[in-house]
Amino acid sequence: MKTLITGGGGFIGSRLAAALRARDPGERIRLLDVAFPPGLEKAFECIAGDVSSPAVIASALGNDTDTVFHLAAVVSGGAEMDFDLGYRVNLDGTRALLEACRKLERPPRFVFASSVAAFGGVLPDVLDDGTTPAPQTSYGTQKVIGEYLVADFTRKGMIDGRSLRLPTVVVRPGEPNLAASSFASGIIREPLAGVPSDCPVPDTTGVWILSPRRVVAAFIHAVELASSAWPTTRVVNLPGITLTVREMIDAMGRVAGREAVERVTFKPDARIQGIVQTWPVRFRTDRALAMGFRADGDFESIVRDHLEGGRAA
Amino acid sequence: MKTLITGGGGFIGSRLAAALRARDPGERIRLLDVAFPPGLEKAFECIAGDVSSPAVIASALGNDTDTVFHLAAVVSGGAEMDFDLGYRVNLDGTRALLEACRKLERPPRFVFASSVAAFGGVLPDVLDDGTTPAPQTSYGTQKVIGEYLVADFTRKGMIDGRSLRLPTVVVRPGEPNLAASSFASGIIREPLAGVPSDCPVPDTTGVWILSPRRVVAAFIHAVELASSAWPTTRVVNLPGITLTVREMIDAMGRVAGREAVERVTFKPDARIQGIVQTWPVRFRTDRALAMGFRADGDFESIVRDHLEGGRAA
Repeated sequence: MKTLITGGGGFIGSRLAAALRARDPGERIRLLDVAFPPGLEKAFECIAGDVSSPAVIASALGNDTDTVFHLAAVVSGGAEMDFDLGYRVNLDGTRALLEACRKLERPPRFVFASSVAAFGGVLPDVLDDGTTPAPQTSYGTQKVIGEYLVADFTRKGMIDGRSLRLPTVVVRPGEPNLAASSFASGIIREPLAGVPSDCPVPDTTGVWILSPRRVVAAFIHAVELASSAWPTTRVVNLPGITLTVREMIDAMGRVAGREAVERVTFKPDARIQGIVQTWPVRFRTDRALAMGFRADGDFESIVRDHLEGGRAA
Repeated sequence: MKTLITGGGGFIGSRLAAALRARDPGERIRLLDVAFPPGLEKAFECIAGDVSSPAVIASALGNDTDTVFHLAAVVSGGAEMDFDLGYRVNLDGTRALLEACRKLERPPRFVFASSVAAFGGVLPDVLDDGTTPAPQTSYGTQKVIGEYLVADFTRKGMIDGRSLRLPTVVVRPGEPNLAASSFASGIIREPLAGVPSDCPVPDTTGVWILSPRRVVAAFIHAVELASSAWPTTRVVNLPGITLTVREMIDAMGRVAGREAVERVTFKPDARIQGIVQTWPVRFRTDRALAMGFRADGDFESIVRDHLEGGRAA
């Protein structure tokens, strides 16, 4: 019994590993990523390599692998800037991993991190489980294609797949990254750390949000659900909460005071706005709620959890 | 100015080539396929080769190529029986062709033959332009993935893509093939030729139908439409007509007499039924009708057109 987490060196991947270990101290957990933060290799078996390389993937899987969390990806802004890199990692990498899983003696449970970036274009005010994905980025396209591959490999009995469309995860720790959604964490994380933050979108911009704690809980819930709990599409829109940038900043102010709020400056960035404004903001997630997935209660508790280092996640 | 038709050795591809030539005798038309029927090479430049080979594809495109019709595919039953072959030709081949188009000096118009097999699973009684694809075959999965690639390459300005979800094309001439829908032509074609035909599905089975003549017209209409006429998804469900197997056979009887009807025998085939019963039967195709695509008037005229060899197509 062994678990593989691709993207395991990343923020969510490493928190997921810690949560799985806390759930079952005996669980053998292997992480695959291009690099790992210091210390992680003491706690977990870490394989550093190209997550789109079939040879690297093969070395990370064994016939005792019964669970795979596939989180590795070139983020939205990165895949938009480097078309080839995005397709190589996000499409070829996913397919190579599925092909490697297919060769295992027993089909593993396979949880795929998809994204709200699956949706775009002409959207209803409130999206629901019947809304057709129409991504407006290469990243979103690659995620939707991954979902369809997961469904087909599952239908063929090669894996037992489950895809989660993640809302924007806020508050991410660490440095800003190339994700177009990076600002949504930055405008909270930096001010709380006493650092100024530039917000590239207007404060009226809506964001569909899930906390790191809830995302990790969703991955674990996804893998624990019986296969029969999943629709044939094997995909679910995770629940979240909708806030405008202004509401997020105000909630931060209520937790951390006026000084934090004043550290946010609005500096419009047309490239970021162009991507973010194609993302959906409001959802009805009936299916996910019926399956037992849960959203956060309010944004203040997300801010407090971040200040406490998310230790309980 | 040059046109490439992949799958150009096939029934629809070669009829499309002839129709394009009839429209404009000066049009330079190149056909790419694994093989060609006798005579075709006299009329068109034919390139025989693996349609999923990047080298073969590169040899078929030139900087003067301004139009690509991508019809080449492993059919539904074939892709279901040989998983690797289906993905290699239907996914890798489509992607290789798109990559080759991206390298051309000017983005070509790119018409992609998708399929009603995009739909399956839990379906409404009548599908419409908002129904989310949920294929229940690898073929359908590969077609949906192709649509998303066409949309993303178009969004990036690499091609000017247009995807058509084809109904079941009836009456196809020639031999039965591995398409699960092969019977829908067989039960008309064989009796009309004085040959017995086994129908593998019950006579209550509904089929969503478009004639060869209308399919060819749809490809030409698709490429002639302005780019702005297409939605950002670049895909449209083509109009068709819905008939049960019984209604098809009865219509044949009205055209060709009782003897033709008596040549059909029902021999249930669980594998074929399993695929066909996942396909949708009734559509509202408002978008396609507004864009100027047209369905057939009735099935009798499809039968008559087949008897006349479809010469006017």
